[in-house]
Amino acid sequence: MKKIKGGVCAAKGFKANGIHCGIRKNKDKRDLALIVADKDCAVASVYTQNKVKGAPIAVTKKNISDGKARAIVCNSGNANTCNFDGVEKAQAMCSLVEKHTGIPASDVVVASTGVIGQPLDITPIANGMQQLVDGLNSDGSRNAALAIMTTDTVVKEYAYSFVVDGKECHIGGIAKGSGMIHPNMATMLCFVTTDVNITSEMLDKALHKVVVDTFNMISVDGDTSTNDMLTVMASGLAENTLISEKGKDYNTFCKVLKKMLETLSRAIAKDGEGATKLIECSVVGAKSSKIARAIAKSVITSSLTKAALFAADANWGRILCAIGYTDADFDIDKIDVDLISKVGKIAVCRNGVGVEFDEDAAHSILLEDEITIYIDCHEGRAKATGWGCDLTYEYVKINAEYRT
Amino acid sequence: MKKIKGGVCAAKGFKANGIHCGIRKNKDKRDLALIVADKDCAVASVYTQNKVKGAPIAVTKKNISDGKARAIVCNSGNANTCNFDGVEKAQAMCSLVEKHTGIPASDVVVASTGVIGQPLDITPIANGMQQLVDGLNSDGSRNAALAIMTTDTVVKEYAYSFVVDGKECHIGGIAKGSGMIHPNMATMLCFVTTDVNITSEMLDKALHKVVVDTFNMISVDGDTSTNDMLTVMASGLAENTLISEKGKDYNTFCKVLKKMLETLSRAIAKDGEGATKLIECSVVGAKSSKIARAIAKSVITSSLTKAALFAADANWGRILCAIGYTDADFDIDKIDVDLISKVGKIAVCRNGVGVEFDEDAAHSILLEDEITIYIDCHEGRAKATGWGCDLTYEYVKINAEYRT
Repeated sequence: MKKIKGGVCAAKGFKANGIHCGIRKNKDKRDLALIVADKDCAVASVYTQNKVKGAPIAVTKKNISDGKARAIVCNSGNANTCNFDGVEKAQAMCSLVEKHTGIPASDVVVASTGVIGQPLDITPIANGMQQLVDGLNSDGSRNAALAIMTTDTVVKEYAYSFVVDGKECHIGGIAKGSGMIHPNMATMLCFVTTDVNITSEMLDKALHKVVVDTFNMISVDGDTSTNDMLTVMASGLAENTLISEKGKDYNTFCKVLKKMLETLSRAIAKDGEGATKLIECSVVGAKSSKIARAIAKSVITSSLTKAALFAADANWGRILCAIGYTDADFDIDKIDVDLISKVGKIAVCRNGVGVEFDEDAAHSILLEDEITIYIDCHEGRAKATGWGCDLTYEYVKINAEYRT
Repeated sequence: MKKIKGGVCAAKGFKANGIHCGIRKNKDKRDLALIVADKDCAVASVYTQNKVKGAPIAVTKKNISDGKARAIVCNSGNANTCNFDGVEKAQAMCSLVEKHTGIPASDVVVASTGVIGQPLDITPIANGMQQLVDGLNSDGSRNAALAIMTTDTVVKEYAYSFVVDGKECHIGGIAKGSGMIHPNMATMLCFVTTDVNITSEMLDKALHKVVVDTFNMISVDGDTSTNDMLTVMASGLAENTLISEKGKDYNTFCKVLKKMLETLSRAIAKDGEGATKLIECSVVGAKSSKIARAIAKSVITSSLTKAALFAADANWGRILCAIGYTDADFDIDKIDVDLISKVGKIAVCRNGVGVEFDEDAAHSILLEDEITIYIDCHEGRAKATGWGCDLTYEYVKINAEYRT
């Protein structure tokens, strides 16, 4: 597997673009993205588990129920959620794609992100669609990635090449997400394209298998959004023998998909609203993956731990406290905790009890912008990793003033 | 029921005191509290559900297993938790009470609050105990309340008089708690005294009945502490006929206890770390109390809702989003949401969809320091109320710098 350029256009058969059409007032901020495939693709998607679901999710579910899609259209600046006319507007976005590209509206994935509960004005989208379509090209991934961003400060765009069945394949993805991030079975907006040849059934299976250890293991603020969506489209243009059952090729693809989604997940956590650092919580030695995941999530969502790490304060008592309130079956008296970053590693807790450590050394470790909290349960062989970020003044500022 | 003065000394048979003994460096901050009863009391207690439990909890559980107690000793500045010698130190605190008062160590409730994982120095407690005991008096409740505070900015001390069986009775309580507040079956430190005549069995029953709707319904930051403890002592000196079974007198006492604990709960939520306002979430029309409680808790713990309310921003989409990710069975499309404060009331959502409202009027309502989010599920008759606070820069500041 090799890191390459090109984002969602790295795989054969995909073009993309992103423009400012006028949903947002700021003319420098692109707000409408389009990804199209040269041919019908196998498609799989996971969505938010929030009971409040954005209208675009309802329309997308219907459109991809046959396992195929050819385009993804997405706006930022308005979530098109909790409005009386949400479904109608989401369908209108798909129809506009059909009108200007010829791709049937029923083969379009539609997504929206932004403020909840304000009717979406379709006019700027209608006016901008021709320009958006005219600009579609195989270098357009970055503009699409820019157009789906909201409070994100960093473009999240990655791609890899890999080999299946002797054929060179590619996978690429873009994602947005910075606040309201605590996915549950799906997350944020994330669009992945690949040219691997795979059935929609196996694509769906792979996505569900991988998402529990990647996107479902990040949290910025504990708030599960109404519009989370993660969609993977596979064009098949790599011409490998069709992956239609479990086996070596399927396993290779799962491994690649996991790397892809893990990279995007980490990027989202690190770019959490107001965040100054990525917090990775690695749990090993658990009796089950479920227990390991629960502990990791408990730690990365603890406000007190997050605030302490903002100050590079090795207040491990808060970490142990967060482990302790995890609703899972494990022995707190066997827990070891280490703090790790690229400048070093320090033990802060053994068998649930604090050990003496050099506070200055710990502070230096925690000043880094990527920190790992390493937890060994000493009860089994299961493990899991979760990703979050610190809690800062900026988080409060961004969210106190979001609509003003 | 009448509000009176005197806190934990309002009931007959109780004295209290609080001093600075030197656990904390700041000489102006009292750090050691003692409450003693003239005679053996019926006692009941609830504790944190965190797997990490402070050593004082283990010692208290043992000491009150016979249903009686005569004193409560509590220090702030150190939680005496996750230390190799925690139980030994907690027992030493009880022995010091015995040495200076004659009350058997096994009748002492012991509690600690402060930093986790730093061995507790018993010396200042040993040196200060005589002074603490010498100062015990029936006006000492406020000093005891001051001594158990950590990041609290307001003393939490209340008392009421009421009538049972024709006798005038009294109940009073003090509490501390400002951060790491997300109780589960118990909370923070809260000590309540009463002179009502009741068996320890009925006292225990009353406490467990009332705590689910009071202390378990508040949250400041979602972090469940390791040292939460709520203890009620009843001296019986009001001389009402002993309450030993369910009935009119028991019901009266439950009502009074609920009022007492609700008042203290609200005070803790309003004084949440960095908070500028109390957020009350009132859920009505639910199919069950459990569902109503789950929805209320989901809303008061949403970081995004809390940050929006700090800015007095009527971003009701975040409230609906938090309702939506509640893990409970209800129909999101029947939900109505109103925002209420003493200056007015405004409808922001009907049947799960936003309604037009006057943003300026909503802003005025949200500028108040006590706000109610009123949610009607339109599915049944059950209700619940939860209390929380806004999320502010100060919260981050307090918790980023707690140990420094």
